[in-house]
Amino acid sequence: MSSVLLSGIAELVTNDPVHDGTPSGVLADAAVVVEAGRVAWVGRRQDAPATDDARDLGGRAVVPGFVDSHSHLVFAGDRSAEFAARMAGTAYDGGGIRTTVAATRAAPDELLEANLARHLAEMRRQGTTTVEVKSGYGLTVHDEARSLAIARRWTEETTFLGAHVVPHEHAADPAAYVDLVTGPMLAAAAPHARWIDVFCERGAFDVDQARAVLAAGDAAGLLGRLHANQLGPGPGVRLACELRLAAVDHCTFLDDGDVEALTASGTVATLLPGVEFSTRSPYPDARALLDAGVTVALASDCNPGSSYTSSMALCVALAVREMGMTPAEALWAATAGGARALRRDDVGVLAPGRRAHLTVLDAPSHVHLAYRPGVPLVAEVLG
Amino acid sequence: MSSVLLSGIAELVTNDPVHDGTPSGVLADAAVVVEAGRVAWVGRRQDAPATDDARDLGGRAVVPGFVDSHSHLVFAGDRSAEFAARMAGTAYDGGGIRTTVAATRAAPDELLEANLARHLAEMRRQGTTTVEVKSGYGLTVHDEARSLAIARRWTEETTFLGAHVVPHEHAADPAAYVDLVTGPMLAAAAPHARWIDVFCERGAFDVDQARAVLAAGDAAGLLGRLHANQLGPGPGVRLACELRLAAVDHCTFLDDGDVEALTASGTVATLLPGVEFSTRSPYPDARALLDAGVTVALASDCNPGSSYTSSMALCVALAVREMGMTPAEALWAATAGGARALRRDDVGVLAPGRRAHLTVLDAPSHVHLAYRPGVPLVAEVLG
Ligand SMILES: [Zn+2]
Ligand SMILES: [Zn+2]
Repeated sequence: MSSVLLSGIAELVTNDPVHDGTPSGVLADAAVVVEAGRVAWVGRRQDAPATDDARDLGGRAVVPGFVDSHSHLVFAGDRSAEFAARMAGTAYDGGGIRTTVAATRAAPDELLEANLARHLAEMRRQGTTTVEVKSGYGLTVHDEARSLAIARRWTEETTFLGAHVVPHEHAADPAAYVDLVTGPMLAAAAPHARWIDVFCERGAFDVDQARAVLAAGDAAGLLGRLHANQLGPGPGVRLACELRLAAVDHCTFLDDGDVEALTASGTVATLLPGVEFSTRSPYPDARALLDAGVTVALASDCNPGSSYTSSMALCVALAVREMGMTPAEALWAATAGGARALRRDDVGVLAPGRRAHLTVLDAPSHVHLAYRPGVPLVAEVLG
Repeated sequence: MSSVLLSGIAELVTNDPVHDGTPSGVLADAAVVVEAGRVAWVGRRQDAPATDDARDLGGRAVVPGFVDSHSHLVFAGDRSAEFAARMAGTAYDGGGIRTTVAATRAAPDELLEANLARHLAEMRRQGTTTVEVKSGYGLTVHDEARSLAIARRWTEETTFLGAHVVPHEHAADPAAYVDLVTGPMLAAAAPHARWIDVFCERGAFDVDQARAVLAAGDAAGLLGRLHANQLGPGPGVRLACELRLAAVDHCTFLDDGDVEALTASGTVATLLPGVEFSTRSPYPDARALLDAGVTVALASDCNPGSSYTSSMALCVALAVREMGMTPAEALWAATAGGARALRRDDVGVLAPGRRAHLTVLDAPSHVHLAYRPGVPLVAEVLG
């Protein structure tokens, strides 16, 4: 078991406050020792221990691999025409999510898996080393189960989202669809999922339905998370906090009570600025959340409808431009914040014992993620 | 001299209206024949002529290489701290442009050239095949001339921007600085430049000074272009139109008379949304310009102060999200529009006789440039 010293790190963001007293734990002229895929040591270059091997990273910045805690990547088809129509402000009845549901149901496993693998590779090239993947475009017992079985081959962080929308064949009887989700669909999905999620929003599932789905998931051993308060105010965030879920995602429309509940519960507010960018919606107020002591995560929500970006760097840049976060806060949210949202203590932080997931930037500082928007700055991804 | 058939092009954007009656000239299931670096033939795959060689691009979209008609890439140093302070809304007297001027003057030629080469390579990886590069961080006879001599080794599109700001050593006597710019500095710069440019804005150079600099440039054989109406309304756009310059850049604050002048003169309005993104300023109204019949270009303005992006794809995405352009209009502006802004008829369009500068996208359609913001979609750059 050989140890490798990584040096030539102009700036290292560890997310370990021990180094500088800030949440980002930034070190200049740093080094990291990696052993068996884990961080063995982190510190200033001059203090580094002896190792079996060594590598110079050429004076770059190194940050923890991004933890993208919210994506929808088991799908087929493309909705670029719907996107273009939305941007042009013209009506388009392409069917929205239901278009993707139809394409996903019709796709063979091999196509779904190839699409997933392609998007995950694209994410990794952009510095993302942990990805949560939801189902939610199958919406039958068979298609939800196979979506999750495919996802599970690629990530531990799989989420059953049978309660994404009510599919057209159940439109006349949504209650029967909730029974299906909490009954046979959950039973088929649970062996392949760690999480259960509900789109709790006007037009999708109401708070009682969300509560029923989460309770059934809990009984089946799944951890809960929620999509809520994306399109307007609603009770979803409060429900997530009451249930002390790991995370509630979107959080675009919050009142003071929602913010207080988030602060008190410790539930992570996961913000998805790619959605606001791609739907031309107002951005959530990250500054207010941070100032209230809420734990904030950033994720891509990568999906073919409302946010087809896989770039966590763009999410960081948007959080800084549009949501009042500093580059350091945004990077923390995209790494350690995502790890908290997934209740993972092995990723998102570069400290002894954690996974050695390192994203090496073609830049001298993490600030460049926001200072250089859109530029592919990831030189290399380790671990 | 062998010919190569490029096929497997799911969508080809040619910017040649002959194909579909739109400015974008889009062809499905297309092919391109390349011979000696030029396009020899463009059309539907099934109509392709016989060639010596052939290559299948795998069902991707192909667009003309981006023409980035506005950048400032001869510089040293970094202003990430200034950027972070601006985003945080805190005061920062880092010195702005003058910081970069000091670092550039102090830098050896080798460093300036290495920085330029690195940024140009970064642009090319992102699909940009033609780049205009300005001086303007030297602001002495020696430093402007060497900046342009270095730039000229890398691009034909070099622009003398001695009239960027008045350097601190001339602060007491701006008129004397204009005399320097129009006299010995121009004489030293002209052999290395195709264009001359002035930052015509309150706090930089007024319209009379701009007129004097452009007239001197004209006498020295340089073509004129302007930075104008970025920070507020002003006479710069009207001056550019009166002089029938190729382009006037920024155009953020325009009145109806400015728009009429642009329409009548044919001067290209070059919009630089990276600046608005990185300075949190209001975006120019591209829709109004297009509806008035103005020719619009998009460029990065890549520079270490106000817009340190080199991503033309991000400019396209911002133009769609923030400025009311369609994806097709934005792509045209970032390719054919840039070519018009540089008075180039060999680039920006894929038609027989033009340069075979092709950007191959990891996507089935050019719409993905806006639909997938921040994602590095460039699979390959040819030519
Ligand atoms: Zn989602
Ligand atoms: Zn400029």
